[in-house]
Parts: sequence; C-alpha cells; structure tokens
Amino acid sequence: MASHIIDFLILGNNFGTQEMRDVWSEQNRLKHHVAIEVALAQAEGEFGIIPKHIAETIMEKADADKLDIQDIAKAVAQAKHSLMPTINAIEKQVGEAGQYIHYGVTTQDIVDTGTVLQLKQAFDIVQRDTRLIALELKQLAKRYQYTPMVGRTHGMQALPTTFGFKLAVWLDEFVRHLTRLDEIKERVLVGNINGAIGTYSSFGVDGPQVEERTLTILGLNTPNISWQSARDRFSEYASVVALISGTLGKIGNEFYNLMRTEINEIEEPFSEGKIGSTTMPHKRNPAALEGLASLTPPILKSVALIHESMKVEHERDAMSWRAEWIALPEINIYLAAQLQTALHVLKGMTVNQQQMLKNLSLQNGLLLSEKVMFELGKRLGKQTAHHLVYQCAMQAFEQNRPFAELLLADPQLQTKLNADELTQWLDPMNYLGSAPQKVDSVIRFAEQSGLLSGDKS
Amino acid sequence: MASHIIDFLILGNNFGTQEMRDVWSEQNRLKHHVAIEVALAQAEGEFGIIPKHIAETIMEKADADKLDIQDIAKAVAQAKHSLMPTINAIEKQVGEAGQYIHYGVTTQDIVDTGTVLQLKQAFDIVQRDTRLIALELKQLAKRYQYTPMVGRTHGMQALPTTFGFKLAVWLDEFVRHLTRLDEIKERVLVGNINGAIGTYSSFGVDGPQVEERTLTILGLNTPNISWQSARDRFSEYASVVALISGTLGKIGNEFYNLMRTEINEIEEPFSEGKIGSTTMPHKRNPAALEGLASLTPPILKSVALIHESMKVEHERDAMSWRAEWIALPEINIYLAAQLQTALHVLKGMTVNQQQMLKNLSLQNGLLLSEKVMFELGKRLGKQTAHHLVYQCAMQAFEQNRPFAELLLADPQLQTKLNADELTQWLDPMNYLGSAPQKVDSVIRFAEQSGLLSGDKS
Amino acid sequence: MASHIIDFLILGNNFGTQEMRDVWSEQNRLKHHVAIEVALAQAEGEFGIIPKHIAETIMEKADADKLDIQDIAKAVAQAKHSLMPTINAIEKQVGEAGQYIHYGVTTQDIVDTGTVLQLKQAFDIVQRDTRLIALELKQLAKRYQYTPMVGRTHGMQALPTTFGFKLAVWLDEFVRHLTRLDEIKERVLVGNINGAIGTYSSFGVDGPQVEERTLTILGLNTPNISWQSARDRFSEYASVVALISGTLGKIGNEFYNLMRTEINEIEEPFSEGKIGSTTMPHKRNPAALEGLASLTPPILKSVALIHESMKVEHERDAMSWRAEWIALPEINIYLAAQLQTALHVLKGMTVNQQQMLKNLSLQNGLLLSEKVMFELGKRLGKQTAHHLVYQCAMQAFEQNRPFAELLLADPQLQTKLNADELTQWLDPMNYLGSAPQKVDSVIRFAEQSGLLSGDKS
Amino acid sequence: MASHIIDFLILGNNFGTQEMRDVWSEQNRLKHHVAIEVALAQAEGEFGIIPKHIAETIMEKADADKLDIQDIAKAVAQAKHSLMPTINAIEKQVGEAGQYIHYGVTTQDIVDTGTVLQLKQAFDIVQRDTRLIALELKQLAKRYQYTPMVGRTHGMQALPTTFGFKLAVWLDEFVRHLTRLDEIKERVLVGNINGAIGTYSSFGVDGPQVEERTLTILGLNTPNISWQSARDRFSEYASVVALISGTLGKIGNEFYNLMRTEINEIEEPFSEGKIGSTTMPHKRNPAALEGLASLTPPILKSVALIHESMKVEHERDAMSWRAEWIALPEINIYLAAQLQTALHVLKGMTVNQQQMLKNLSLQNGLLLSEKVMFELGKRLGKQTAHHLVYQCAMQAFEQNRPFAELLLADPQLQTKLNADELTQWLDPMNYLGSAPQKVDSVIRFAEQSGLLSGDKS
Repeated sequence: MASHIIDFLILGNNFGTQEMRDVWSEQNRLKHHVAIEVALAQAEGEFGIIPKHIAETIMEKADADKLDIQDIAKAVAQAKHSLMPTINAIEKQVGEAGQYIHYGVTTQDIVDTGTVLQLKQAFDIVQRDTRLIALELKQLAKRYQYTPMVGRTHGMQALPTTFGFKLAVWLDEFVRHLTRLDEIKERVLVGNINGAIGTYSSFGVDGPQVEERTLTILGLNTPNISWQSARDRFSEYASVVALISGTLGKIGNEFYNLMRTEINEIEEPFSEGKIGSTTMPHKRNPAALEGLASLTPPILKSVALIHESMKVEHERDAMSWRAEWIALPEINIYLAAQLQTALHVLKGMTVNQQQMLKNLSLQNGLLLSEKVMFELGKRLGKQTAHHLVYQCAMQAFEQNRPFAELLLADPQLQTKLNADELTQWLDPMNYLGSAPQKVDSVIRFAEQSGLLSGDKS
Repeated sequence: MASHIIDFLILGNNFGTQEMRDVWSEQNRLKHHVAIEVALAQAEGEFGIIPKHIAETIMEKADADKLDIQDIAKAVAQAKHSLMPTINAIEKQVGEAGQYIHYGVTTQDIVDTGTVLQLKQAFDIVQRDTRLIALELKQLAKRYQYTPMVGRTHGMQALPTTFGFKLAVWLDEFVRHLTRLDEIKERVLVGNINGAIGTYSSFGVDGPQVEERTLTILGLNTPNISWQSARDRFSEYASVVALISGTLGKIGNEFYNLMRTEINEIEEPFSEGKIGSTTMPHKRNPAALEGLASLTPPILKSVALIHESMKVEHERDAMSWRAEWIALPEINIYLAAQLQTALHVLKGMTVNQQQMLKNLSLQNGLLLSEKVMFELGKRLGKQTAHHLVYQCAMQAFEQNRPFAELLLADPQLQTKLNADELTQWLDPMNYLGSAPQKVDSVIRFAEQSGLLSGDKS
Repeated sequence: MASHIIDFLILGNNFGTQEMRDVWSEQNRLKHHVAIEVALAQAEGEFGIIPKHIAETIMEKADADKLDIQDIAKAVAQAKHSLMPTINAIEKQVGEAGQYIHYGVTTQDIVDTGTVLQLKQAFDIVQRDTRLIALELKQLAKRYQYTPMVGRTHGMQALPTTFGFKLAVWLDEFVRHLTRLDEIKERVLVGNINGAIGTYSSFGVDGPQVEERTLTILGLNTPNISWQSARDRFSEYASVVALISGTLGKIGNEFYNLMRTEINEIEEPFSEGKIGSTTMPHKRNPAALEGLASLTPPILKSVALIHESMKVEHERDAMSWRAEWIALPEINIYLAAQLQTALHVLKGMTVNQQQMLKNLSLQNGLLLSEKVMFELGKRLGKQTAHHLVYQCAMQAFEQNRPFAELLLADPQLQTKLNADELTQWLDPMNYLGSAPQKVDSVIRFAEQSGLLSGDKS
Repeated sequence: MASHIIDFLILGNNFGTQEMRDVWSEQNRLKHHVAIEVALAQAEGEFGIIPKHIAETIMEKADADKLDIQDIAKAVAQAKHSLMPTINAIEKQVGEAGQYIHYGVTTQDIVDTGTVLQLKQAFDIVQRDTRLIALELKQLAKRYQYTPMVGRTHGMQALPTTFGFKLAVWLDEFVRHLTRLDEIKERVLVGNINGAIGTYSSFGVDGPQVEERTLTILGLNTPNISWQSARDRFSEYASVVALISGTLGKIGNEFYNLMRTEINEIEEPFSEGKIGSTTMPHKRNPAALEGLASLTPPILKSVALIHESMKVEHERDAMSWRAEWIALPEINIYLAAQLQTALHVLKGMTVNQQQMLKNLSLQNGLLLSEKVMFELGKRLGKQTAHHLVYQCAMQAFEQNRPFAELLLADPQLQTKLNADELTQWLDPMNYLGSAPQKVDSVIRFAEQSGLLSGDKS
C-alpha cells in the first residue's frame, strides 16, 4: 500500500497519469540502469577495454525483467549502497563476464544517465501534450473568435472582449512553451559516463570516446565535460515545466471563476452520474478545474527544490541529487495530469454563450464607459469628459440606475450627445476593438512556427 | 511498482520509515474513514438522530479490513467522486442500516477528520523521537563537556570550545522543539464534523453535540467553529516540523563537515561491509549524514506548500487541501527518516578526540589571538594591542611561521610579554571560557522542563 | 532614490507602513547598536570588567543621533567589515574610554541583539494590530450574526449561511494567532552577548552574568546558551507571521471575490475621488483588497528564506544570517501593511445585504437541495431521496427551471411532498443550522481567552 | 533612511551594485514612464490619432527630470491610484496638449512597458558580466589546466583531478548560461501597448500599428497579442537568473570550503587592513565568498515568487504583478552583486598550489585506491581485487598506516605486485585521466560558440 498520493489507487489519477507514472516507476528505473551497463559493455568491447566476447555475453544475458527488486532491496539495506546490489545481480546473470560489468564507471554515471533516459521519455510526453493543447486552443480560438463576452480586470467588469481573444492569449503562450521545449531539448538530454570524479581516469585514454559511444547507443547526447557537479540541465527543464504549469494553472483558475454560479459562462465536462457532493444533490462542481489549478503550486515547490539542487559541493555530493530524485518525478507526474486534464476540459467544456451575452448587460451600460468618454472627449476634451463620465458612472452604480439615463440627464452632457448615438456607443458589439483580428495574428504565427505539426521535434 | 521515491523498495528507507509510511498509507487512510463513519453513527444513535439499533448495526458490521481498495478505486473513476464509493462499500457491509451511513455530514468532514487522526499518530511518533534525540544529546553533551575542539566561524578556525558545548546548543534547541510540540498539540489535533458548509444544518439543533461526541469517541478535540475554511492548524504543525527539521539538517551538515578527510573529527557509524563507492575501495562516505542533511530542503518546500494552502475560497474549495494531501504525509515521512537517522548517528558515531586535539594546534598558535590581544590590551590598551597582534598574526599566516615567534620578535611587543606567559596564553585548554558550565546550565534547564521524561505529553 | 519598493515614495505605502519601516530603518538599526554597546559598558562597569568611570563616560557620551551614517558607510567600504567603523565612530565620541567600547564581545553579539531589539518593537506592533483586528471581527460577527447569505463550496453556491458565521471563523483563527504570539513572545525576544564563539572566554568567569545584566538593561531575555548557531527563534516568529498573513491574505481574497461585479455582496471602502482606472471611468476596483491578498505570497517566500537560515555551519557563518537581514524586515513590513489594510477594510467596507438576499434565490431553489433530500429521505430513505432529488436538480439546472416545479412534477416524488411544505424547505432562512449559535460560541471563547484586552501581553 | 537592506548605505553594496540599483530606482522608473507616454504621443501623432502638433509639443515639453516625486507621491495617496498623478504632472508640463497624454492606453500599458524597459537595461548588465566571468574562467581553466589537486566526493577525498578541470566545468556551465540569455532575449524584451483589456478598442483600427510604432521607438519588440494576462516572459527571465545564480552560489560555496583552515587551497582576495573580526585579530574570513554564496537562496525565493505571478485572473488583476514589482528588481540587484563579486574573486584570489599538493598526500596513498584496484583487477579479476583492496584500505584508515605498507604485507596481494610499480600507481600525477584534455575541449567549444566575444548579442 503506497503512502504517497502519487501512488494511491483511489486518488492517484488526480495527481498523475499511468503513462507518466510508468516512466518514473522503480521498475523502469532499474530497466534503464541495466540498459546503461549493457551499452557501456558494448562500447568498451568495441574499444577493447574489455574483451569483445565478454561484452557480447553481457549484451545477451543481462535482463532487467528477470531481476527481483525485492531481493535487491534487501541487499541494499545490508550494503548501505543503493546500486551495488543491482550490479551484483546482473553479475550473477552473466556468469564469468560479471567481472567486467560496470567497468571503470561510478555509481553516479549509471544513476544520472538513467535519470536522463527517464527524462527523455517524460520529455516526449510533455512535448506531445503541450502540442495537443496548442492545437486545441487554436481550434477553439477560431471557433469563438467573434463570441462576445465581458472582459474583467481586478475581478470587475471592464470592457467587452471575445472568448476567442482570451483563448488566443493562451495559444500564444503555448507556442512560446513549444519554442522553449524545442530550444532546450538537445541541451537537456545529455548523459554522463566519465568515472569516479569525471576524469575518465579508469578508462585510459579512450575515456571520452567510450562515453560518447555509450551515450549514442542509448540515444543521448554527450557532454563537453562531466556534469556530475553541474546540474543546471535539470533546473532548466524544471523551469520550462514551471512555465507550462503556470499557464495551465491559470487556465484552471480562469475557468473555475467563469464557472461560478453567479458568472456561469463555462462549465467543465459533465457526464450523467457525476456527483458533486455526498450531501447536496444539486452540486455540479468544477472538480476537474480545481484539479487543474491545484497542481501548479506543488509543481512550483518541486521546481524550486530542483533549483536548489544546483548547489553541489566539490566533485559531487549526495545532498543535492536527492532533491532531484524526489522532485523530477513529481513535476513530470503532476504536469502530465495537468496536461491531460486541460485537454479533457478544452475538448468537453460547455460554453454558455447566452450567459456571456447576459453578463455583458449586467451593469446596465457602465461596461462601455470608456467608449462614452472617448466619444465625448472628442467634443469636450478627454479630461473633462473623464470627469463628467466618472460622476455619472458613480451615480449609476450607487443608485443602481441605467448609465444612459444619467448621461442624458447630466446638465453638462445632455447637449453634447443624443440618445441614438449613445445607444450605439453602449452596444458591446461595437467595441470589440481588434480582438478578432488579433486571434488571426496569433493563429498565423502559431502555424508559421512549425511547432504545431510536431515536425520540428 | 511505485513511482514516488517514498514508496520505492530500494530507496524508500532513505526517505522515510516503515512506521511512518504505515500512518500515511492508503490502507490506514481508509481505515480512519470507516472509523469516523462508525463513530458518527454511534453519536447520532445516542442523540436519536438515527435509530439506535441502526447505529449498533453499523458499529458491528462496518469493517475497513474487508473493503477492497481496488474495487473502490474503480468506482471512484466512474463517479468522479473520491469518497462516495467508500460510503457505498460500507453501505453494502451494513445492509439496510446503510441508509444512515454518513448521515448529515459532508465528504470534507470525513476526509479532514481522517487526516487529523493520521496526524495524531504521526504527532506521537515525532514527539517520541524528538524526545529520544534530546535525551541522547543530553548524555553526549555531558560526556564531552570538557572535550576540547576547535570552534569555527565562517568556516575558519576561530577559538577553542568543547564538543559538549556544541551538543548543548543543539540540546537547548531540542528542548524548545519539545516545548513547541507540547504547546500546539491540543490546538492541532482537532476534528471537524459539521456538515456541508459547517453550519450543522442537516443535523437539526443537536449538531454541535453530535460533533463533540463523535470527536470524543475518536480521541480528538472539538473546534469552536468549523475549520473547513480555516486550515491554520496544519500550517502550525508544519511550522514546527520545519523547525525540528531545520535543526536536524544543521546537525547533518555539521557532522558532514566535521567528517571531511581534512578535518576528520567525527565519523558516522561504520560497519564492516559498508561500501562507499563501487569504484573507489577506500571511500567511507558520510552517507547517513548526507541523508540527514538532504531531507530538510524538501521538508521546507512541503511546509511552504502547506502554508499556501491556508488560502481557501468561501466556505471551502478543493484547490487548497490537495496541497495538504501531498505535503502533510511528505513532511512527516521525511521527518521520521531524519529523526531515526539522527538517533542512529548520535548513538553510533565515532568521536575522534585525538584529531580534535591535533586540529587545535593546526594554526600554530593563531587560534588564541584573541586571548593574546586581551592580555596585551591590559598593558597597551585594547586598540593598540589589536593593531599589533593583527600585524603579527597576518605575518604568521602569510609566512607560515609560529605565532609565538613573531610576537616575541615584535619590537613593540617583546618588552611587554615573556615566553612563559605566552605559552600559557596559547594553550587552548586555558581558554575554554564558560563552555563547560553552560553545558550544565542547559542540561539543568532541560531536566527541569519535564519534557524529557514524556510525562508532560 | 530607493530601488526596493518598500522604500518607494510613490508605492511604498502599499507594501508597508511608516511605523514599521521606522523600526527597520538603517537609522534605528544603528541606534540599537549603540544602545547595546552602552548597556554592555554599564554591565561591565558593574562587574568591574572595565573601570566604572569609563562605563559612565561611555553611557554619557555615546550618542547614536550624532553619528554620520554616510561617513560610517565610507569606512565600511574600506575595512570590508560592517561594524568596526561604527565602533570606531563611537570611540571617537567617548574619548579615552574608547578602549573599552565593545569589550570582550564579537560583532555578532551586537548585530544579533540589535535585530532582536528591532524585532521586539515589531512584535508589539503586530500584536497590537492582530488584537485590533480580532476586536473588529468580534463586533462585525455579532452585527451580522443573523444576516443570511449564500455559502459557497468549490466556487459554487452550496447552502445558506450567515455573514456573521463567516466572520466568526476568522475571529476564531485570530484568537489562535493571538495565543501563538503570546506563547512565543518570551521565547523569541532573547538577546545574545557571549563573545567570539559563544563561550564568554574574553569575559573571564563573570561572562554569563554580564550577558544577563546587559540584556536586562535592554529589556530582553537571556538565553540558556549562545544561539549564534541556533537561529530557530527567528524561524518560529516567522512561522507565526506566516499564519497571520495566511489568514489576512485569505480575507483579502474572499472579499475580492465577494466584490466581483456578478456577486457584489461586499464593497471595499470607497471615497469620492478614488479612481479605478485611467481609462474606464466606471471602474471601482478592489484595490485595497488586492493589496491585502497580494502580500501573503511574498511573506511566505521570505518566511521560507528565514526557515532556510536555520542551517548554520559550525559556531557561526555569514551565509545564514544574511537571509535574516533580508527577510525579517520584509515579513514585518509587509505584514504591517496587511494588518492596517485589513483594519481599514473591516471598518469601512459596505455590506450589501440586499444583494446577499438576491443571490440566495439566484438558483431558483437549488440552494436547498440538501434540505429537500433530508426531508424526503425521512419518507423514502436517504439513498432513494438523494437519487431522485439529484435527477430533479440536474434537470432544473440544465433546463433553467425552478427546482420546486420539477420536484412537484416528478412522478415518484409528487405523492411524497406538497407545495406548502416545499416552500418552507426552500426558504433559506429556515436552514441556517447552528450558524448564529456558533457565532456566540466563538465570541464567548474569544472573550474568555483574555487575549482581546491586551492585558495578557 | 531606507528600511530594506538593498538601499542601506552601510550594507547595500553587499546586496547589490550601484549600477543595477540605478536601473531599478524610483527615479528611473518614472523616467521610463514619461518616455513611454512621449513615444506613444509620437506614434499617435504619426497615425493621426492625436494631432501632430500636439504630439510634437508633448515630445518637446514632457521632462521626467523636472517632475517632483514627493509631490506625485502625495497625490497618489489621495487618488489611491499609482499612475494618475504622474500623468497629471506631465499634463501640467505640456499645457493644452495634456488632453492627449496617455491617449487610449491604460495604466498597465505604461507600467508593464516601463518594467520591460528597466529589464532591458538590467539584461544588458547581466549579459555583460556573465560573459566577463566566462572569459575569466576560460583564462583560469587554461592557467591551471595541469595543476593537480584532490577531487572530493561526499566531502571526502576521492581521486586526483586538476584545478583547471574544476574551472572548466564551470566555464561550460557559463557558456550554457550565455546561450540561454541569447535565446530568450528577443522573446523577453517585448513591450505592451494595447489598452484597457488588450483589445485596442480605444485606438480605432490602427491600434496594432500604434503599438508597434511606439515600441519600436522605445527599442522593444512587439507582442503577437496583449500579454497583460500572460506573464510568462518575466518567469522565463527569472528562470535563467535562477540558473546563473545557482552556478554563482555553487562557486561561492566551493571556494568557501576550499578556503577552510584545514583545506586552505584557495584564499579570496585579501588586502592589508581588511579585518576579519572585531575580537579575533588572526581571522581572515571568506567574507566575499560568503556574500557570493549567500545571495542564491534569496534569489531563488524571488524567482519562485515571480513564477507564482503567472497566475493572473481574467484580463488582468493586481495581485500577480505586485510580486513582479517586488521580485524582479530583487533578483537583478542580488544577481548583479553576485556577478561582480565572482569577478572580483576570480581575478584576485590566491591559489595555494603547494597546499594542493600537500593535500594530495594527506591520506597516505588511499587516494589512489581505484588505480590499485584496476591494476590488480587485471591480474586477479576486478571483484577479487575490489575485495582485497577494500580490506587493506579499511585497515590503513583505521590504523592510520600507509596504504602501500598494507598492500605489500597482504598475503594474497604481495605476490601480485611489487613496490616499484605500486609507487607508480600511487602517484597522483599518473592518474589525472583526461582532465587536462577536457579543459581544452570545453575552451574550444566556448570559443566556437561565439558567445564570449559579445558579437552575438
């Protein structure tokens, strides 16, 4: 029975996906460790550092699937060393060739390179889902390009906008995220095979080539120099996760607020039988949206932990990388849940356009106070207009009366405007500005980036 | 196969203890949920809110051990509600009485009170181990009360102190931690059974009494008013965990530094067969100490996450408490590992007193520059003395010569001091100040606090 | 011209108060440093460690107000030592007595004790304002004890409650905060005067008494043992600040949401001439509330920084305490702004009771679905009732029809209820539960605590 | 008198540089605000949105240097709006043209674009100093390419390496930092001029062109769409600051440890007259190194705060950007201090090569246990060799005897090796691996990147 919620049967899927948990499972970790030892043997065989036939035996017989993690765990408790028992177990599998397992490397080589192999799998999932969300946002932004709704600042109704405009802001953000993933990918997915303190001393002169060959076999890039004491790559990846999660959390929070009973412009996907409350039968809660919004804070904490792990002492210490062991799986698993939830929400949400329209007239005209001010400003000067419109607006609010009524009754204003033009000014549809055009700009940019097609990565 | 390191077979024990993992296991969580439903039924039976015989049936037949978590997990996925399937499963166990299960409460009542029940178990473990460490520090401080060693500031040798003095500073800190645990215990271990939004509306007038009775049965305190939207208690507990972990991390870091090859005053417990490196046979690493030091940062991150969860919207939201579900188990599990590791280290470490003595003379006399300055200050005035002693000290350092030699050769000083008294001044044993006395003061205070005996809690 | 917003002329008051900035000003810091040197001289004079008349000269002539910070700053740049030039400047003021300034202590003694003297002033302000807020909440909770409003969970309307109940939850939280401040005060306000590495070696045998006397003169408590390397007290204070700020941020966020155009139940204090927007004349923004809510995150970050500063190496290092120098002033200054803003808001806000009533009927009866379910449950069994009521509720929501209409039209329900009783059930005023009673319980507890009167502290 | 340490006369330079403080000063902030209003007027004049001669008047007469911040601050307190009084003050300067100041924009346009203008100045400083450090590291890595020193893992002596190798690891990291700065620069330095909620509604159809022209005048890039509610650019910049600061903090910590009395391989720049302690004349403290190391934690906290500010509600709120106002200046100011300190240290530090050699033989041969094992492994098989060498090493350590003595006395080993070859094996100079070669690889890569010359940016 697990003790961390990530591994809970009942609640785990609110905090991760099976696919991403599999990447970071203990089983997969072990599998990569074996794969690295095998790739190393192959490379060392090619360079004559170990006998070729030995390398072949290792490649043939080492088998992660047949290792018993329970047994290894027991041996770890005795040796107080986390990798030695794995090596011993592989040695048993390969017989006499065992003397050449793990030849010339240090634990850290295996463990760090293993982490990067897991990270590579995680990276692909994150990149895929980030792209899928961008595609979804592109479609939705286009669909709602001209759908008018209230724009709000400081939580208060401000001016009309369109729903597509809101979505296009997010699309633009996601295209930036895709760009970032694209930029960092090669720099982050770099392995490390260079011995006890990174100097290849145990390999003889061929050290650097052995490293490059091993990493090539594993599908990873080769570093310029050992990064045992330079962990910035993980921090860089974590930073991009922070940015993606930041946008996702914002979207979750935005829809959560738009779904409020009193606003009611959006509803997350609902299916018959979904229960909001054990005691209040009417509740249709934004459970998915809260889930989406709630995972950003733990991700940001874990990202901060990874940032701290950049502080390594000397050629290596064991205080920094433990933070990575904890936090790298966490940020990927939480992010995977956020990405999938966001996709689910974007694909299935209800957009209540009627309520959007209704909310546009909730303030009885005040929503267009800027428009009125600018039009009157042309006749009165902007400052004067701001002053007079402000006074009418304050009264309209406090007396809960129609804005138009007060404007038309104002002694200084009534000669400057007529009811017909005022009606035009107060129509939200006439004051969407360049909102729909900007949707097109963003979509155009997104398409031209080449990042939506997945070709670039 | 788990995906979070807390639940790893191979590495899990570096990040937690079995005892504490059991407290936060999914199984134990479910067990408490059932216990609360049963206690509620009992209380409601007593107040006539549900029929008494129904309550008895529930008390008799509800059985957490017979529930199948896998089945519940499947139902949760369908209902998209995390507790309803548990309630349904209990209903099946109790037959017709099932209609009265979970009567008048909301999911949050069960889940929050369940968390507090787990927290109570965790609290006891933390309090017990904090006390055991204090006791160990008390013994050690006394044992090494007069053991001289170098005191260091800014990483540089500063003045002599005693090992017992260092330990007494920590003991004093641990007595404060015990005081804090003592102060918050009653305030933190408070349950919550008050219905959908905390107003007891579904219970009729007896709501507050039902809550009190239910919580009394469960061994928890009763709140003045619902805390569904007031989560400060968890933050308070987390804060004390931060403090305890802060001290533990500091101790880990301190011993890690004292164990450095070049300092070598302490060695963590070593046992034959313990391996430091897969490739460097001579390595005896401070693995336990690094483990001890490395768990404070993740704890502090999780504490910060819990602090953030104080922001609850309206009568309740699901964005805040998820942080608690993640972080409360984490801080307890990591802390449990730190406490046990610290105990293990304190009980088994090697104190290399000979090396401590050797290090006291490493600087060839400079360690006592303050003493020399004060003695000469009496004859020359402190400022003048500081100036002259400073110059000799700088030369001694730069030329790597004995401090005494330079002092005795200084034209302005040589008439003010003689070699014999200088020898006295430069003897570290003569300049321990009140270090040993302070050890006694701290021990006396600790004993008088009554907190070491466990009687007070 | 300042570069940190705390010291900005234009924006500074959104991030602090003049009163609290004064506590942490460079001027006040220097003043305390001088005061400590003077108190030390006085104590040392009494114990004969320095000549009595010298002590008297120092007490008479040392004068912080006459020191020139600009000059000191220049000297600091040269000596690369932050305190020495201050000591030199005082020496100049006291003439020959200068030889006995700072006698036997180390920089850290002065700086740490100075920080605690500032903290004492800050503590009093925080305690005072925390109490004032509790008093205000008590009054308001009583005033609105029976004022009905919508209770919301997950952002969605859930059940009726009263505004006083909401306020009472916060009052209860503030009483806990006052209790915490009360508990930690003596433990936190502890000075430290014990020499280079805390062993009093430079004072001779009277060290501990000199420390106690000096700190008594300064109005601080005396530690059991040096805390140069044990900084938990600052972390403990910071933790309580985190908790208070957590509640304040929550209140800010709550009112911000209740002030939303679409909810409109609360308005922050508005005064004629207050401008919400340079371009939208109608905007009345929750500027104060956003200010209130926005300061919790930076406080939590600074608290986390202080928590990290518990990691001190050896007898002292300069890496930990810099975090305190940055973060202790920050948390106090931000908190002072939050406390004052909260007071301002609580005293001056508009409570829109009419809108609260209007919102209670926004859902056309669904708000009382729990009540209907429980009443029907008595006739049909709770499960059956939940099922049927759930179906009616979902239809009412989706078809935007009155809940009552659907209930009365339901074939299985229509024989089980009549329109009159349904009208009763759907009246929010009949389903406030124990909300008003709980307000009284909380107020009673608050009053009995003795913490509201300020007598206890 | 300032209250935040950044603005302290005495201590401020430990936490920032004058150059960077000037960028973030209140004066410079105001200056940029005026510049934006002027550029806007110019652009609007060009597009005929305001009369051309009006634009010219504004360009001619608006003058930030003549504004009185004290007066503006007073007006802000009254209007409770942070920008309006600045606009009013400019209006006064330009006479009747004042009606067209700030035409069509919202406060956020000015404030956000102003922040980006400040950020642009800061970016240049950071990029410049990052490059200077890389250049310095390149020189040093080459100079010490073959300088042997102890490599340490887990704080314990592990194997020989070279000092140049250590520096090359950092150089490689700094080249990555330069790459990152290069990649994000265009994406980050983007202004925003698009009106109340980003839709340009007040500009008429020319809105997007007005924005582009205004930003071009100001030297900033133009966004695809308003980013009032998309703050990821600041988070991206902050992330790179986190990475740079992470490396700098690590370097500070590394040198701090290498400067320990017991290790003594490095000393930070020392100048006659520099004082380490007011009471211990011999102290030469790593004050600059502690300063360097100590600024990473506050930067990471402020970075985390900026990450959180990505959560913006609706079209804009004032809760998120306050975090930016606090934290963006902080991370730049602290980082500027770190960069300058690092440069100062790298340029002026003492490298104690003799002590490095001495430390290489501190363990009496154990440092080369890996070498011995590999050589014996060729004769005995690696496992057997590991086992036997491990036993000798443990005895050598525990009995404090020369490693060679024990190896040569071992019954199983003595026939497998002779004293001469053992002497060769135990010579650190023979076991530097590819360390010096890797220094060249890194330097070659750095030079080929084109990032060191500053041409690329």
